[in-house]
Amino acid sequence: MKPSIQLNCPMPKLDFEYITLAHGSGGLLTQRLLNSGVFDLLNNDYLSEQHDGAIFTASGKMAFSTDSYVISPIFFPGGNIGELAINGTVNDLAMCGAIPQYLSLSFIIEEGLAMTDFWEILVSIQHAARQAGVQIVTGDTKVVEKGKGDHIFINTSGVGTVHPQADIRASRIQAGDKIILSGELANHGIAIMSLRQGLTFETDILSDTTHLNHTIRGLLDNFGTAIHFLRDPTRGGLATVLNEIAQQTHLGVLLSQKALPIAEQVAGACEMLGLDPLYVANEGIFVAIVTPDIAEDALQMLRQSEQGKNAAIIGEISSEPSGKVLLNSIIGGKRIVQMPIGEQLPRIC
Amino acid sequence: MKPSIQLNCPMPKLDFEYITLAHGSGGLLTQRLLNSGVFDLLNNDYLSEQHDGAIFTASGKMAFSTDSYVISPIFFPGGNIGELAINGTVNDLAMCGAIPQYLSLSFIIEEGLAMTDFWEILVSIQHAARQAGVQIVTGDTKVVEKGKGDHIFINTSGVGTVHPQADIRASRIQAGDKIILSGELANHGIAIMSLRQGLTFETDILSDTTHLNHTIRGLLDNFGTAIHFLRDPTRGGLATVLNEIAQQTHLGVLLSQKALPIAEQVAGACEMLGLDPLYVANEGIFVAIVTPDIAEDALQMLRQSEQGKNAAIIGEISSEPSGKVLLNSIIGGKRIVQMPIGEQLPRIC
Repeated sequence: MKPSIQLNCPMPKLDFEYITLAHGSGGLLTQRLLNSGVFDLLNNDYLSEQHDGAIFTASGKMAFSTDSYVISPIFFPGGNIGELAINGTVNDLAMCGAIPQYLSLSFIIEEGLAMTDFWEILVSIQHAARQAGVQIVTGDTKVVEKGKGDHIFINTSGVGTVHPQADIRASRIQAGDKIILSGELANHGIAIMSLRQGLTFETDILSDTTHLNHTIRGLLDNFGTAIHFLRDPTRGGLATVLNEIAQQTHLGVLLSQKALPIAEQVAGACEMLGLDPLYVANEGIFVAIVTPDIAEDALQMLRQSEQGKNAAIIGEISSEPSGKVLLNSIIGGKRIVQMPIGEQLPRIC
Repeated sequence: MKPSIQLNCPMPKLDFEYITLAHGSGGLLTQRLLNSGVFDLLNNDYLSEQHDGAIFTASGKMAFSTDSYVISPIFFPGGNIGELAINGTVNDLAMCGAIPQYLSLSFIIEEGLAMTDFWEILVSIQHAARQAGVQIVTGDTKVVEKGKGDHIFINTSGVGTVHPQADIRASRIQAGDKIILSGELANHGIAIMSLRQGLTFETDILSDTTHLNHTIRGLLDNFGTAIHFLRDPTRGGLATVLNEIAQQTHLGVLLSQKALPIAEQVAGACEMLGLDPLYVANEGIFVAIVTPDIAEDALQMLRQSEQGKNAAIIGEISSEPSGKVLLNSIIGGKRIVQMPIGEQLPRIC
């Protein structure tokens, strides 16, 4: 799917084609699997110690986050589970106002995974970690029997230093704050959906999976504590994140449908599938809730970056309706945007 | 299995009996699941922020470790996957010479898991975290379809401050160092094996899963840098850990079979099953490699603790045979202890 990256890191010649239970034993075959290229690919001083954990030096406020990735299928338009797992945890740390630094990487592999698939995932992990500027310092590999997993699940956890100018907390959100969305809605969810069994529509929509930490850092460098809150609308989509904010703050969220950035093709796919893009998962965008005085400057700064070129102010915080999200629709009506009960699409991340 | 713990935390009345895909959606049902008791059970100031990550203050050297737990069955004599996941990562941090502080907790649940089973696991997690003195500060819950997982997999990652007197590195190991084993061999592996399909022998052997951090801290307080290396012989058993040490240091490991602590019933089960206890997994013991001058004092200190009452000096480091583990057998012969190729028993942790 990404031949240009793959070509730079051809898979070494190995005496096995598929991952077996013994590769998760902790014994010689685990050692061989890791020495076959995993350690080489992800090489750094921390990992080469090969201890039970990594040791680094820290000072001040640190953020710590975890996510397990169970996306199906593991390869999808615009990415694979490997880069998703790196970008996801990098972004969760960035949403805490932190500068992501060190990641752990833990695999649960179903026996029979082709080594070529595993290699492609590893190369993507290496690439995503470099792009985000993080190091993978500790890890774990488990293998489960055929039928007890689904190709591969990946957990990444991460730590990073909180930006000295960051103070990101839901309790800092105030009525009058502006809501910025950094990019187009629903690309990730629609890209995955186009691949699922039974859904045969074809699109060239790509997942938006990417690292957001450099963009967030730029905002924090320039606007510091004027940024009250950050969150990436992944599982559950924008509607879930905004409802959580409304519930936590007991404030209202006023949303302008007209202002929501969405690609024409994605809007069309949502319509065709009967999906509301507010509930579709994203992987490469974020919501920033900022003081009104810097909103326009922050938007302009975002728009000058590749990742933020479609950014928009999509609404504002208000004292009413308390705990609710209210949408001003394009046709002029108003409706409450509910918290979703379940997920339109399981295993989206 | 642990009624005394369970009774203290009865499961709240819920409107569902089984975990469904929607509980992993990130929407309302995820919120309900977490608010039904998970947050209450594991309550602390970090978790109650309910952000994408937790923020804590750190200074100096920190250790960071991760492990995914895929043990089958999830309930076993002496414990369950929940406490195993807490103790395992607590111990990995302790083996780095760190004082474990903050843990992340990430579930991959197969749909259909009974809520009573999940609750029992959560209560054990709460109990294990309290015993070890760690806080669960951030987490994640994913649900996969029936047949795409196996009841529940758990990832825990953790961070902790390195003990000021600790300097645990394989490169500090020297010829002449003594090898202490803190307790009896092979209890965990044999307890699990007694439950596996096809093996019908009955024993009252319990898994040794426990937190080792307080014991390690006591050793570091007293003996500091005289402790050169620490490692818990989990997957792959003692033979794997000692072989890794021999390979990394290019030194020899001389092991006395007579000195190895093992319960009579466990030795009997190993014999009956044709297993070498050196290769069987453990969860509640550790290997300490220490300078010869403090070895006897460290042993006496360990023996005064409940977890170390069966501790023994099981051998020493030597310049020869380089990179190998040599066992002096009870009957007087010598043999090389090889690195295992695979695992006698998959999914032991």
